[in-house]
Amino acid sequence: MAKIKNVLKLEQPTISGLKIITLKQFYDKHGAVLHMLRSDSKHFKQFGEIYFSEINPGCTKTWKNHSEMIQNFTVPIGKVLFKFYDDRPTSKSFGVKEKIIVGRPDNYHLIIIPPLIWYSFENISKNHSLIANCASIPHNPNELKKDKPKIIDF
Amino acid sequence: MAKIKNVLKLEQPTISGLKIITLKQFYDKHGAVLHMLRSDSKHFKQFGEIYFSEINPGCTKTWKNHSEMIQNFTVPIGKVLFKFYDDRPTSKSFGVKEKIIVGRPDNYHLIIIPPLIWYSFENISKNHSLIANCASIPHNPNELKKDKPKIIDF
Repeated sequence: MAKIKNVLKLEQPTISGLKIITLKQFYDKHGAVLHMLRSDSKHFKQFGEIYFSEINPGCTKTWKNHSEMIQNFTVPIGKVLFKFYDDRPTSKSFGVKEKIIVGRPDNYHLIIIPPLIWYSFENISKNHSLIANCASIPHNPNELKKDKPKIIDF
Repeated sequence: MAKIKNVLKLEQPTISGLKIITLKQFYDKHGAVLHMLRSDSKHFKQFGEIYFSEINPGCTKTWKNHSEMIQNFTVPIGKVLFKFYDDRPTSKSFGVKEKIIVGRPDNYHLIIIPPLIWYSFENISKNHSLIANCASIPHNPNELKKDKPKIIDF
């Protein structure tokens, strides 16, 4: 199987605790095998739930913030623009806003989002995009905030 | 969010240990949230690795058999025909062949495949299909057989 490298240079995020890891993609004539996360990876903390978020063309899912969940996002189908905002008062990156594009084939990355970081995402593909989230705890509405953070959108 | 039910009646497989569970899909105007597997589910055993297999239109990935891995498959994009064959000498379902279709929106199921069951899969969508596998152990080529089983294909 041919392995392809991501084309764009990978810069680590400025927001403290936010991480990006380039994932492997293996192609042959039948299709592709796309890595996401292994339990023996140094980035892995705990398995709580794996689920998918499909985004229609032209759509955005607005700001969310988890108080406990560590999220591991990738985009196996399409291309997604993620926006992040850090309003943790004691953070070294307090007030920082950040944008990261994830998708195939050039930007097939894992984004690790620690608790208390605001995030939203927008489908920037012409077709549907699919986000996979391998989260550290199962979905729990009590640890999820959906209010918009107190920033002007960017 | 509107929740849709799978339309087709779900029959449990004949092969001993093979299981199908209907997964929830929640739709709104922005897209969908698609469940897969939670650590607090009664079906969950252990997290080893989550990865994806994309299958090109018209393509089949041929027979495989794992000696240790429990596989949890679903199909968040497209539609896939899985074939299974049980050649475990002590199995109650020794010699049984089985076909299961998984895909959206009508057949959005989780298939749990115990070790030592032969399986292959074929993309029956007009477009690409994507299989997600949340496996009980990380990929290990030493526990994977790729020889074709001694049956006439079906």
